[in-house]
Amino acid sequence: MKIAVAQRNFHQGNIPHNTAIILSSIKEARKNKAELLIVAGYALTGYPLYDLTTYDSFVYQIHNSLQQIADACQDIAFLTATPYYSDEKQLHYGVAHCFQGNIEYLGETLYPNLQPDLKHLTVKAHAISMIIGDTSASFAAIEQLTTLGNTDLLIYLSATPFDYSLPTRRIDQLTLLTKQLNTPLLFVNHIGASTDLLFEGSSMAFSAEGSLVVSAGLFQEHMFYVDSSQLHSNSYESLLIDIPDKSTLIRDALVLGIQDFFYKSGFRQAVLGLSGGLDSAVTAVLAVEALGAENVLGVMMPSQFSTEHSLIDARQLALNLQIQTELIPIESQFHAVMNSLQYVFKNKEFGITEENIQARLRGLLLMAISNKSGHIVLNSSNKSEAAVGYGTLYGDMSGSLSVLGDVYKTEVYQLAELINREKDVIPVNIIQKPPSAELSPGQKDSDSLPAYKLLDALLFQFIEESKGSDELVKDGFDPELVKRIISLVNRSEFKRFQAPPVLKVSPRTLKTDRSMPQNSSFII
Amino acid sequence: MKIAVAQRNFHQGNIPHNTAIILSSIKEARKNKAELLIVAGYALTGYPLYDLTTYDSFVYQIHNSLQQIADACQDIAFLTATPYYSDEKQLHYGVAHCFQGNIEYLGETLYPNLQPDLKHLTVKAHAISMIIGDTSASFAAIEQLTTLGNTDLLIYLSATPFDYSLPTRRIDQLTLLTKQLNTPLLFVNHIGASTDLLFEGSSMAFSAEGSLVVSAGLFQEHMFYVDSSQLHSNSYESLLIDIPDKSTLIRDALVLGIQDFFYKSGFRQAVLGLSGGLDSAVTAVLAVEALGAENVLGVMMPSQFSTEHSLIDARQLALNLQIQTELIPIESQFHAVMNSLQYVFKNKEFGITEENIQARLRGLLLMAISNKSGHIVLNSSNKSEAAVGYGTLYGDMSGSLSVLGDVYKTEVYQLAELINREKDVIPVNIIQKPPSAELSPGQKDSDSLPAYKLLDALLFQFIEESKGSDELVKDGFDPELVKRIISLVNRSEFKRFQAPPVLKVSPRTLKTDRSMPQNSSFII
Repeated sequence: MKIAVAQRNFHQGNIPHNTAIILSSIKEARKNKAELLIVAGYALTGYPLYDLTTYDSFVYQIHNSLQQIADACQDIAFLTATPYYSDEKQLHYGVAHCFQGNIEYLGETLYPNLQPDLKHLTVKAHAISMIIGDTSASFAAIEQLTTLGNTDLLIYLSATPFDYSLPTRRIDQLTLLTKQLNTPLLFVNHIGASTDLLFEGSSMAFSAEGSLVVSAGLFQEHMFYVDSSQLHSNSYESLLIDIPDKSTLIRDALVLGIQDFFYKSGFRQAVLGLSGGLDSAVTAVLAVEALGAENVLGVMMPSQFSTEHSLIDARQLALNLQIQTELIPIESQFHAVMNSLQYVFKNKEFGITEENIQARLRGLLLMAISNKSGHIVLNSSNKSEAAVGYGTLYGDMSGSLSVLGDVYKTEVYQLAELINREKDVIPVNIIQKPPSAELSPGQKDSDSLPAYKLLDALLFQFIEESKGSDELVKDGFDPELVKRIISLVNRSEFKRFQAPPVLKVSPRTLKTDRSMPQNSSFII
Repeated sequence: MKIAVAQRNFHQGNIPHNTAIILSSIKEARKNKAELLIVAGYALTGYPLYDLTTYDSFVYQIHNSLQQIADACQDIAFLTATPYYSDEKQLHYGVAHCFQGNIEYLGETLYPNLQPDLKHLTVKAHAISMIIGDTSASFAAIEQLTTLGNTDLLIYLSATPFDYSLPTRRIDQLTLLTKQLNTPLLFVNHIGASTDLLFEGSSMAFSAEGSLVVSAGLFQEHMFYVDSSQLHSNSYESLLIDIPDKSTLIRDALVLGIQDFFYKSGFRQAVLGLSGGLDSAVTAVLAVEALGAENVLGVMMPSQFSTEHSLIDARQLALNLQIQTELIPIESQFHAVMNSLQYVFKNKEFGITEENIQARLRGLLLMAISNKSGHIVLNSSNKSEAAVGYGTLYGDMSGSLSVLGDVYKTEVYQLAELINREKDVIPVNIIQKPPSAELSPGQKDSDSLPAYKLLDALLFQFIEESKGSDELVKDGFDPELVKRIISLVNRSEFKRFQAPPVLKVSPRTLKTDRSMPQNSSFII
């Protein structure tokens, strides 16, 4: 059986758009004489579904569109995963098999991605087993299997958000699984972004003996064809894939994330603050790669504490990137605000309040430009800052999308290195000078935080590796530092609660993968 | 068997604190010769757990504290629900039964509140069946049962967030269940708040014939005692409970929510903007009820568009409430900001951008006062505004806690009526004048929104009742209006994403109970 595997960029919640993509894929697949077309799980609805299925009308719309697809499937079959109503109008999640005007559903009343086992069905006399979703739990259950009985083919309809560890890990897992079951496997996944969640693609075919033989690649739409009988007979040559290094994966993912955020929300232009620092520089570069220089506006908003080199560096960056800039000093607005507060503030000493006022004025100015011109504000806070709460809510934490919120500061340096590999796009001084918020005289990040190398090592163990304070101390981190950093992370939960959506690139993104109580004096 | 039922205010994530509460309850129960003490499900950890259990150290801490509790249980048994590790170190959720230094766990590897069935155990020779959590799914499964076999007693360890429909609905459900099973039932629940989620208590005892015989009441800590054999013999008189009306429930819930937010985060004082409008007036009243007048600061921030009566009304309210106020006009700061933008803004016409700048300056000023003085900013946006995005992100949408974000504007009027039942705490003019943001000359809410009575009716059907546009039109709503309002709700998802936590009082709170994609052109 000739099978078409379509790795497509579906749009979350947009059924008419996704139906059109599927219909055009069917057309192309038929032209190439495929007998079956498969797409990612939840292709018709986009993924994740969130609470869309609490609307009857949404579930009916899915069914109607599937009917349209089934009607177009006269000589070709089609498979995806989808929510649907059972005959008793119970919400189920499962496989939809469309052929010659009919829709066959197979599933259970479980959340998507909680499917514990395999679905079996027959497509054109071929016995097919299907995996939906990608929780470690369901995958672990399948890994327990040693045989699939008389299954000709295993098809994995995935909808798995990207992280930088996934592409390699998945090839290893699927190779192992295929070898174990001695059954060919087709893996098909989304490519594209649903606001904060990215899908890198990586649709692949494995032969019965566990060799990877076809790949649709990363971060691109692609359609490939395989013959299932040849997957059995090992007629395909096995493929060696070089997964790009972590920084490259992150960079490609972030560019896709920015691109899709704008494309799918119907906006074209971005604005961001250019402080002369590293985070905004890297964000600007990624925005330019995603949207084009003509669609990125950099705003320099120096305060009385900004050093001259910051402005010079920001200007040089803008020049290198060929982006437009605006200069709006914030001193006069700052004084107007401080004047208006003079009778309220009994404590006249300059402190965090005054630092925050400056950061919030910048946020206000960016939002004003956004409101006036339709540019979307990109946020450039990094994960290290977000973790310890080193940022001002409604100030430098504002924006519609956080580009680097899942990238530790040390990883931002690595991105900068990657960006500058061929030429100095980011002025070297931006990379080399010590990080500073420049909100008070002579301020440096290192005044209030440990060196980022140490901080990030600790944060990684605490966040990605879920190690508690005892374990961290056992690992050699200073007990006082552990206590201080964990307390900062816990106490800043309220800030992250109101932060913009963060492009997920790590195995554990703050807030979405690590939802924690606010106002809890919990000690981990 | 004499059983103590402790309805207590546990602190989310704070195991040492909750252990102390349980130990003191055990002490009290023993003094009163109880043989068994029961508390709400997930009492030791507080509820919800979010991702706390991804930390080994947290799960071990639970076990260690349960051991401490078990050691204190020499002549009394103790029951709660908890996460724990199985012997194979798998995370389970289930019942913990402590007695004479031993801990007996009974559970499964499911999410809390997804327990599909009953747990059975023997406590001091009494056969007990237990329900944990409170999903409609698990409850529906239990409702299918017609008998519990030789069970002496059914115990329901609940952890169910409050909504105004729950107290009545639950009595009805539990009465029916008890009658059906012909088994006495003890229901025990949390009282208190975990940031946005409230627990109203309502712990109760039902006799075998289905009569409610003891109640711990709403919104208060309380401990009661029952004799299980007397629940069988119907020796208790049945109790008739008057559940307060919806507005009273909402008011009591919000006051508890504010109180616990401050108590559990370690803060005492609140600040909020007093616009002279209804929402901020009701928020101020509730804050005073929760924290005391001496802990509430009202800030009046008139703009050039504020009417004189707004200031008069706000002042009168503050006088009635005996709260401190500050007056900070925002005209000069507004001009400083506009001046700084004059070269950037090609479009000089006054519009939404300028309205938003004013709202954001107010947010900035409140946050400045908060930073300087340690007062927490209370947000006073209502659910109608939040639903249609009629509010400024980082402006009037700022704050650490949204008090009215789950209360429709028409319900805010009902709260005002309730508050003013005995005397005019809220100046009548605040209630009677047409709602206005006062951000442009002569502006009224009704310029851009339909009358709140119509808007709220439509929103209720769309949000709480999950009706799609076709159904709404069939129900008699104007097709154009339906389309416009649904589009407003969909398009403002990005604003709600960054909104403060909202005290949940309705069956369907925006964002938490209705998580929807951003950037999706979905049509429901």
